[in-house]
Order: sequence, then structure tokens, then C-alpha cells
Amino acid sequence: MIRARVSGRIWSTRHIGTLPTGALLEVETETGTKLIAFDPLGCADGEAVLVTQGSVAAAFFPEKPAPIDALIIGSIDEQTSKPK
Amino acid sequence: MIRARVSGRIWSTRHIGTLPTGALLEVETETGTKLIAFDPLGCADGEAVLVTQGSVAAAFFPEKPAPIDALIIGSIDEQTSKPK
Amino acid sequence: MIRARVSGRIWSTRHIGTLPTGALLEVETETGTKLIAFDPLGCADGEAVLVTQGSVAAAFFPEKPAPIDALIIGSIDEQTSKPK
Amino acid sequence: MIRARVSGRIWSTRHIGTLPTGALLEVETETGTKLIAFDPLGCADGEAVLVTQGSVAAAFFPEKPAPIDALIIGSIDEQTSKPK
Amino acid sequence: MIRARVSGRIWSTRHIGTLPTGALLEVETETGTKLIAFDPLGCADGEAVLVTQGSVAAAFFPEKPAPIDALIIGSIDEQTSKPK
Repeated sequence: MIRARVSGRIWSTRHIGTLPTGALLEVETETGTKLIAFDPLGCADGEAVLVTQGSVAAAFFPEKPAPIDALIIGSIDEQTSKPK
Repeated sequence: MIRARVSGRIWSTRHIGTLPTGALLEVETETGTKLIAFDPLGCADGEAVLVTQGSVAAAFFPEKPAPIDALIIGSIDEQTSKPK
Repeated sequence: MIRARVSGRIWSTRHIGTLPTGALLEVETETGTKLIAFDPLGCADGEAVLVTQGSVAAAFFPEKPAPIDALIIGSIDEQTSKPK
Repeated sequence: MIRARVSGRIWSTRHIGTLPTGALLEVETETGTKLIAFDPLGCADGEAVLVTQGSVAAAFFPEKPAPIDALIIGSIDEQTSKPK
Repeated sequence: MIRARVSGRIWSTRHIGTLPTGALLEVETETGTKLIAFDPLGCADGEAVLVTQGSVAAAFFPEKPAPIDALIIGSIDEQTSKPK
């Protein structure tokens, strides 16, 4: 998984029929890479999140096949992230 | 998923038999990376699109196994993309 | 697989229901790339570990579908790693 | 998918038993990245090709599990590739 | 697939139970990227090998689910690799 921060949100009115209903957030990693992830948790702008990628992201959706390759799976507790 | 813009189109007269019929668009990310994605939506040159990658892209096609590892899943609404 | 070192740990109180219970460690590769991996072995901070990625990481969990795309599969024996 | 050019060929006399019989071509992307792809089309050196990657490449082979993660799925028509 | 050279070997005494028994070799690509691949062929240090990655690497193992995302599938014949 990767650690990222929510940096925006996109809307897509015209999309394929199998796109699940829900929020599509832009997240940015510490190195500046941006990607768009599906958010089932209602995360806020600036929130630190844990993102999983690939086919395991799609497996979250019971109605297959969901065309989702990035999924926010958790909000990272800020005060406890480092050191171990 | 990644955010990209349509930057071209390719044709492939000689191809394997399981390649689905449809448009193969070249898209470019904000960092300049180019890839070729299948387009089921009829997107125009310059349009901002949302692209999914990997096996979840192939799962879109009912007749498996489609050899597609990149799929345009939506057109991004331009006026609302940022900020959240 | 990739070779990495444990560099931290994260906690996520608010997460999706299918996230398996267990440690989520931050690991860092020799080139400085950081990722978050599920740790079923109880690895310590600074320990050299072997990490697998993608859907094979999720296949480790009997209760599918686990949204895990990075898994620590072993602790690397320090004294014998090189040369062959 | 990615656009690439055929830049060489490799032979592997000693290989695992599930490697499909056929040509293994070296292809090079516009940015100089090289990879080895299975070629079911008989492409020539210097030819522009479309390459798919990951598990969808292996799904092309009826006798599973083929250990192929890169497959040439088409020859790109040179004269019509750009602009759209 | 990628072309790489065997550059070392690792041992992991403490590992998860589903790790297949066999050699775990460090391989290095022409650009210097290192990864750890399972070797079913008994390759030697310095040998040129062909490596497949992702879930197709795990599919090689009959006893699933193997947590292997990189597999040596062949030894590359040195004298015939280029030009085509």
C-alpha cells in the first residue's frame, strides 16, 4: 500500500456503466505522484490515507467487475504514524 | 486510476484475434507519460479522462480474455476537478 | 519481490471492514522508495525483509477479498545475503 | 498498453516447462525502457507494436498458466498513428 | 518480461508458511534495478535470465496461493541475444 494525502476530487458525469457510485479523490504521495482513488470512507481534503492498488482494489466491490484500480482502505492516525 | 488527456489515436490492422473492436487512444498524463487505452466512450482529442490499468481494465469486456490493460472509464468534468 | 527495511508503523482506526487485523509496517527499499506492507511475522524496526506485491499478497489471506497489495513474506538472514 | 519498437530477439534454450513456444522479442519504448514480450504475430525488427502487460497477457494462452507478462497484441499502422 | 543478471542470493529462515521451498536470487536489470526472484532452474551467479512478474509468476506453483511475484522463467542464450 502507499501513504498519501487527499488533494482534490474529480467528477465524471459521462462514464462507463460499471463505475461504482461514490467519491473519486485525487491523492498525492510524499514524492509528489498523484493518482485518483475511490473513497468509501468519506475522507476530507488534506487527510492522510492508506491506498491499495491493482486488482485487490476492485475486489472490494461486491458487484463485479468494478473498473477500480486504486482504493482508500483507511485513514492514517496522524499522531502515531512514526516512529514505531 | 490516473488522470490523463487524449493526445492521439492509433490503428492496428494486423492484430491478435482477441483484441476488442473499438478505439485505441493515446493518452498523456500530467507528468508526460504516454500510454494507449481502450476507449468505450468516444472521447475527443484533448479531452480529460480517467484511466484504469491492469486486469480490472480487461474485466470490462464480457468476452474474455481481452488483452486490454488500460481503459478509459470516464470523462473528467473540467470545471469541477479542483479544489475539493 | 523486493528487499526492504522496516522503517515505521502506521495505525488506522478508521478503515474499511475487509482490512485484516494485524501490523501495517512502513518499509523502505535501498533506493529510498517507501511502501506500507502487512506484516504477519512480527518484524522489528530496522529488520531486513522480503516483500511481495500485487494480488499474490492478497491471496495470503484465507478470508477474501483482502485489500492488501504488499506483504512481508520473510525476514532476510543478514549474514548470508551476499555474495551468492 | 504501451507503444514500442522491436529492437531484438532472445533465445532461451533452458527454460521452465510452461513457457509457450514462440518468439520472445525485445521491444523498446519511446523513453528507452526495454522489455521482453511474447510475439504471436511474427513482427519484424524495427516494427512499431502495441504491447499489453500483466496477467491479461497470460490470459491469451489457452493452456494456463503461461508465465508471460508482456504480449504484442498488434502491429501499429505507421501512417495513421498521429494526429487523431 | 525483463532481462536481468543474477547478482546474489538471499536466505530467509523465518518466513510465512506458504513460501515455496527453493532458491531466492537477487537479479539486476540493465538499468540497475534489483529485485528478488524465485529460481526453479538453478541459475548461477552472473547468468543472464528472463524474469516474469506479477500474478503470472505465482501461477507457476501448483500449490496455491504462492506469495511469489517474480520468477525466473529461462536462462538467456548469451551468443544469440542480439541482433535479431
